[in-house]
Amino acid sequence: MFDCVLHCELAWLGDDQPAHDVRIDVVQGRIDAVAPGTAAPPGAIALRGLTLPGLANAHSHAFHRALRGRTHGDGGTFWTWRDRMYRLAGVLDPDSYFSLARAVFAEMVQAGVTCVGEFHYVHHQPDGTSYDDPNAMSDAIAAAAGSVGLRITLLDCCYLGAGIAPDGTLLPVQPEQRRFSDGSAAAWAERVSARSEGGHVAVGAAIHSVRAVDPAAMATIARWAANHDRVLHAHVSEQPAENDQCRAAHEGSPLAVLNRTGALGPKFTAVHATHVDDTDVALLAAAGATVCLCPTTERDLADGIGPTELFRAAGVPITVGSDSHAVIDLFEEARAVELDERLAGGTRGNHDVTTLLRAATADGHRCLGWSDAGRIAVGNVADVTTIDLRSVRTAGAGADKALAAAVFAATAADVTDVFVGGEHVVAAGQHRTIDVATELELTIGELWHAVEAAG
Amino acid sequence: MFDCVLHCELAWLGDDQPAHDVRIDVVQGRIDAVAPGTAAPPGAIALRGLTLPGLANAHSHAFHRALRGRTHGDGGTFWTWRDRMYRLAGVLDPDSYFSLARAVFAEMVQAGVTCVGEFHYVHHQPDGTSYDDPNAMSDAIAAAAGSVGLRITLLDCCYLGAGIAPDGTLLPVQPEQRRFSDGSAAAWAERVSARSEGGHVAVGAAIHSVRAVDPAAMATIARWAANHDRVLHAHVSEQPAENDQCRAAHEGSPLAVLNRTGALGPKFTAVHATHVDDTDVALLAAAGATVCLCPTTERDLADGIGPTELFRAAGVPITVGSDSHAVIDLFEEARAVELDERLAGGTRGNHDVTTLLRAATADGHRCLGWSDAGRIAVGNVADVTTIDLRSVRTAGAGADKALAAAVFAATAADVTDVFVGGEHVVAAGQHRTIDVATELELTIGELWHAVEAAG
Repeated sequence: MFDCVLHCELAWLGDDQPAHDVRIDVVQGRIDAVAPGTAAPPGAIALRGLTLPGLANAHSHAFHRALRGRTHGDGGTFWTWRDRMYRLAGVLDPDSYFSLARAVFAEMVQAGVTCVGEFHYVHHQPDGTSYDDPNAMSDAIAAAAGSVGLRITLLDCCYLGAGIAPDGTLLPVQPEQRRFSDGSAAAWAERVSARSEGGHVAVGAAIHSVRAVDPAAMATIARWAANHDRVLHAHVSEQPAENDQCRAAHEGSPLAVLNRTGALGPKFTAVHATHVDDTDVALLAAAGATVCLCPTTERDLADGIGPTELFRAAGVPITVGSDSHAVIDLFEEARAVELDERLAGGTRGNHDVTTLLRAATADGHRCLGWSDAGRIAVGNVADVTTIDLRSVRTAGAGADKALAAAVFAATAADVTDVFVGGEHVVAAGQHRTIDVATELELTIGELWHAVEAAG
Repeated sequence: MFDCVLHCELAWLGDDQPAHDVRIDVVQGRIDAVAPGTAAPPGAIALRGLTLPGLANAHSHAFHRALRGRTHGDGGTFWTWRDRMYRLAGVLDPDSYFSLARAVFAEMVQAGVTCVGEFHYVHHQPDGTSYDDPNAMSDAIAAAAGSVGLRITLLDCCYLGAGIAPDGTLLPVQPEQRRFSDGSAAAWAERVSARSEGGHVAVGAAIHSVRAVDPAAMATIARWAANHDRVLHAHVSEQPAENDQCRAAHEGSPLAVLNRTGALGPKFTAVHATHVDDTDVALLAAAGATVCLCPTTERDLADGIGPTELFRAAGVPITVGSDSHAVIDLFEEARAVELDERLAGGTRGNHDVTTLLRAATADGHRCLGWSDAGRIAVGNVADVTTIDLRSVRTAGAGADKALAAAVFAATAADVTDVFVGGEHVVAAGQHRTIDVATELELTIGELWHAVEAAG
């Protein structure tokens, strides 16, 4: 719990324009006062550029970072990519996952992310048996986040099957998926109930997808989430094949099935939602649910462009995630929501700049269950991210276009400072306690050696 | 003309894999020897990471950089964006364009670009009269490139009209377009013929588009290019409206009209080519012509996704350009060729990694008329760009995936060193003679003050 006073050249307080000369007082890790138009008091930490609320990365599979560059030039489809991802998942253990996740989470923090939603399904040992501590893997991930100053919502994911059989039952998990499965939703609920939250860790529920969870299990998970007042995320309609199989087996789209089982509600987030239709969007809107788009992953995996014009028209909030971590750059994700709709629809200016910023901040935090984060406001946690407005990328836009410059010109490399709970975790563009690139190189290299050794 | 010896940890010599421990001897600005698997001799400059041929940015309008962040959050279409661009163009003069272009070109060099194709149409004074030196503006641009170590092909652009009238004639230029027009193709040819090339400067021809050049003028320009053995570029089918107007007036697509007038050939490059069809692509292929895609601009301007699968199938080489400079990052452009096709087609691995790298290097240089650049090979100019393979973005891919990491993970921020003609122009990621961001901030700020003053 940290105390400090920040003084921001420009800070986004939620309006259409940033405020100038903003003093932010931090007491015990929370924002105690916000005063625009104020001179810097002695001892204040001066933040040049634009200070934003800390960014929320609403959908992450941390270990996928090890695939970056190693699969992205390859051919095939989502499904061939997945095979390689499974080989990697096969060699993880709590120690190696801690090391990898710590490096990946540090890359995120250095990119301005202060809270991540980790959609976590590598729970068990490779043969499917539980670790001595059934939550050893999620503990490792949570510890990794904490070690680099990142808040985390552990979206603990139920994963029970390998696809939908024609009769609507689930196909049994394949050998490489065994470690993802708790065997039943009841066993999942028991394990997750044993995981406490607090401090930098929140716990949410996740349904992997209609491919991996049957409707009865969905209902169990939805009940658990409702009873525990937790957020609930699910991969939804990422691929047309998933829709086809779901409709054939369950007489409804993935969202229709999720809705029937009670999953939809204000705490529900549909991840991807690339291949949803008007009816699906109406279900989301009626429930007050959220979508999480992962545009750089959807580009990489050839998923397609989601119907963001439908979400906008229906008032379904959009959040963003770096998902497979082909790229870790929330600015790129936010602008891609707009740019990919431009490609699909032929019109500019579909999503307001502030809407795109909210996707990466307040709306992202909300869908991860952090109601006291994502806005620079009194009482909220003191999580802020400052970007350089005078880098080679951002220079020239001017103060009155600072928000647009953040969304449309900045990259993760423009993040100069990050505070989490008032702690100064990134300064001068570098994480203060970890050499991120070196840790990534080391841990990823070791993992692939293990994959090779495993044959 | 510089002499030095470089020693590259990894260098791409055109093969599917980079070579290790590559010694490159530079004599008088050219590559005199290339020796893979060689220890570093005393005095060699060690280049850690992956060394590529210098990048070619095949389509640029330098002054558009001043729009970055200032227009990209706006609504409307390509056409509303263009209005704002015209206001900016209206205040340029040779001095201010030199200053702006110098900063923009320095941003490019720092991003690893060693050769730019500047599609140049702001030739005259705002009222359309010639400067005392009719090539004062192109001289300013060429000098700006030279001042920061960048090779340039001045694609001097003929621009005569404001659109196609129903009878097939050109509408007269609008007041804000007067300074783009030479009045006739003959006058254009006379002016361009007076512009010498040599050293870091090549001169090519450009037809703005079927919207701005009538078929008779196209024929004059095509003859000029053929007689002078120069490259010829044209904006082609960027917008569906352009196709519709062209077909209505000329009974053919823009490429069909260009073909009739003799413009197509091995030195012809169709820029954008977003809305071309099979017949158009067959024309390009038969002519041995090239396309230049500008994916980040095409995203920003809501142009759409070009049919890269047709270019690939027909063997039409693809090059890339940053065009409006919403982004200056040739790695982003190269990967976007692939990623946007994935979005459109639903399949990964459409363009080989080496094809994408050639787009940004050898093919780009060739379409700009530099046959002795774009490959690390004996006799070529000593233009190379080194990227860090151990940054937060690139770490973990491993040496055998270094080329894929360059295309799919690297950004302009990963460029550590750039040599042009053996001169070390970028070191440790920074241009050695200009503070790029400061110059951008200064010159762009001054220009917008001028726009405001002009009312």
